[in-house]
Amino acid sequence: MIIDIHGHYTTAPKALEDWRNRQIAGIKDPAQMPRVSELKISDDELRETIEKNQLAKMRERGSDLTVFSPRASFMAHHIGDFEVSSTWAAICNELIHRVTQLFPDHFVGAAMLPQSPGVDPRSCVAELEKCVKEYGFVAINLNPDPSGGHWTSPPLTDRHWYPVYEKMVELDIPAMIHVSTSCNACFHTTGAHYINADTTAVMQLIQGDLFRDFPTLKMVIPHGGGAAPYHWGRYRGLAQELKKPLLTEHLLNNVFFDTCVYHQPGIDLLTQVIPVDNILFASEMIGAVRGIDPQTGHPFDDTKRYIEGTLNLSADDRYKVYEGNARRVYPRLDAALRKQGK
Amino acid sequence: MIIDIHGHYTTAPKALEDWRNRQIAGIKDPAQMPRVSELKISDDELRETIEKNQLAKMRERGSDLTVFSPRASFMAHHIGDFEVSSTWAAICNELIHRVTQLFPDHFVGAAMLPQSPGVDPRSCVAELEKCVKEYGFVAINLNPDPSGGHWTSPPLTDRHWYPVYEKMVELDIPAMIHVSTSCNACFHTTGAHYINADTTAVMQLIQGDLFRDFPTLKMVIPHGGGAAPYHWGRYRGLAQELKKPLLTEHLLNNVFFDTCVYHQPGIDLLTQVIPVDNILFASEMIGAVRGIDPQTGHPFDDTKRYIEGTLNLSADDRYKVYEGNARRVYPRLDAALRKQGK
Repeated sequence: MIIDIHGHYTTAPKALEDWRNRQIAGIKDPAQMPRVSELKISDDELRETIEKNQLAKMRERGSDLTVFSPRASFMAHHIGDFEVSSTWAAICNELIHRVTQLFPDHFVGAAMLPQSPGVDPRSCVAELEKCVKEYGFVAINLNPDPSGGHWTSPPLTDRHWYPVYEKMVELDIPAMIHVSTSCNACFHTTGAHYINADTTAVMQLIQGDLFRDFPTLKMVIPHGGGAAPYHWGRYRGLAQELKKPLLTEHLLNNVFFDTCVYHQPGIDLLTQVIPVDNILFASEMIGAVRGIDPQTGHPFDDTKRYIEGTLNLSADDRYKVYEGNARRVYPRLDAALRKQGK
Repeated sequence: MIIDIHGHYTTAPKALEDWRNRQIAGIKDPAQMPRVSELKISDDELRETIEKNQLAKMRERGSDLTVFSPRASFMAHHIGDFEVSSTWAAICNELIHRVTQLFPDHFVGAAMLPQSPGVDPRSCVAELEKCVKEYGFVAINLNPDPSGGHWTSPPLTDRHWYPVYEKMVELDIPAMIHVSTSCNACFHTTGAHYINADTTAVMQLIQGDLFRDFPTLKMVIPHGGGAAPYHWGRYRGLAQELKKPLLTEHLLNNVFFDTCVYHQPGIDLLTQVIPVDNILFASEMIGAVRGIDPQTGHPFDDTKRYIEGTLNLSADDRYKVYEGNARRVYPRLDAALRKQGK
């Protein structure tokens, strides 16, 4: 089985965006604030947006199951207050739940959280718990910078975040560390802010000792770990300067990298530098880079081709990257699959 | 000849740091503000700090000439106002000038600029001009984020920066895009802020069309280009989505990457993905990562070993990386070398 652990519902019906735009208008003018019940999306509409897009590409490229979460750039936690984020997260997570109900063999949910700049992350726990216990979600996306490119929250190793980690450990779910839209003109959302956040998260985790407090906490760094694998020597050296244990011990029992790296040399480096047990197959399609690579004639984000193409992985290794590691890092996914006899 | 285009005076005599600390104290309490004349560092002290450190390692590792600039993390443009930055930049640049006079065969200068958050970069032009015309410097370091991790300046493609670019073009000098200390707790200075800034700069240059206005402008992205080469497929794809020309045309006539990547797989990727004409040898020693790599028994920042070790470069290619490209990208360096018959 091939499990893609990084997919967002980027193709949701336009009614969702329209509702969100009304919600944003409603922040300034409460008369315009829409009710949740005004958002109407039928199962047929959901089916169509999935079948023609993500599911079509999964079939075409040969992946079986996607860990599916709300569109990352639309989380936009910097907009409005906790109430706004909370309503928006609930709507987006419920849509994901409906997709997973419509396509139980192909999609399993991961939650966005109702984060809001300056608000205690403890406020996210109720939505998290609902998504796991009622919707059967197997993971969350945690935004290390709800300000959207101004980085006003403390580092991920700060006790600020502990209420979320405590609940993750209790429910045995991993977090993908994933920012949202940048509202800082310096940072292009998918070209700078996403990648910087990945790099920043890795360095925060190196500086701190978070996994001493949470030995079973698991974090997935998307987009191939940002710059970290390319600069792995730098990070090994910085950890050494900081008198930390080797990264294999300090980080790699708890931190995993996905394969959203959109060319063969990048995947070759990732699979050479990072132990295979820490690599999880992912494509983040249909996402930031939707075009065809003129150098190969294939879509940039068809990352399965690079996993197949690399000389660094044996057949056993590929099983780990495609399935085995995901079952280990997402225990609730494994349990759900076992229930289905998979 | 082997030219290292990225060295900082990280080993300057302690008197410099003491003076700076008094200057910082003087911002709050003007009675403590030291005079420039109170900083006394003898030629013998300069000689000793260089001979025992950078020059010793250059001899040991086999490089000949370093493009040398003030310590990057000490630029700290976020401290004080333009007057504070201006005095500090002048002092640091003069020390570099003295080092280049004491060791004319081994060091050539690159200037730090007296940048200050919110201040028009035009204010930096006088110091820049002095360094090039009076001190014989061949390049500058341009900080895209003088706020130190808050990213309050416009992107590098904004007209805000044009006065500096106009002077660079007039004087035919390149800029290394190099941030300084992070004062944002989210960003470790050398592990996150430096690398993020490199990635951010590349993406800003992809988004804009700066080199249409300045076809001869040259920028060096340090630390192996941040995350950009590892994610080169992503950047090629994003450029395509933005309807830009191929990166070879859109970026690589004007943008160059150094080799400050501290392990063999990183240099292998860099030299595989980026055309050899765009790669400049550099080590940034004695810098962020000073230890010995336990995997190799050699210093992490002995990047010459990786250039020698990669299978991607021919002898001709190595000449370009070590010398030829530097002479092309730094025309004033080439002119100075020719004058010396080199």
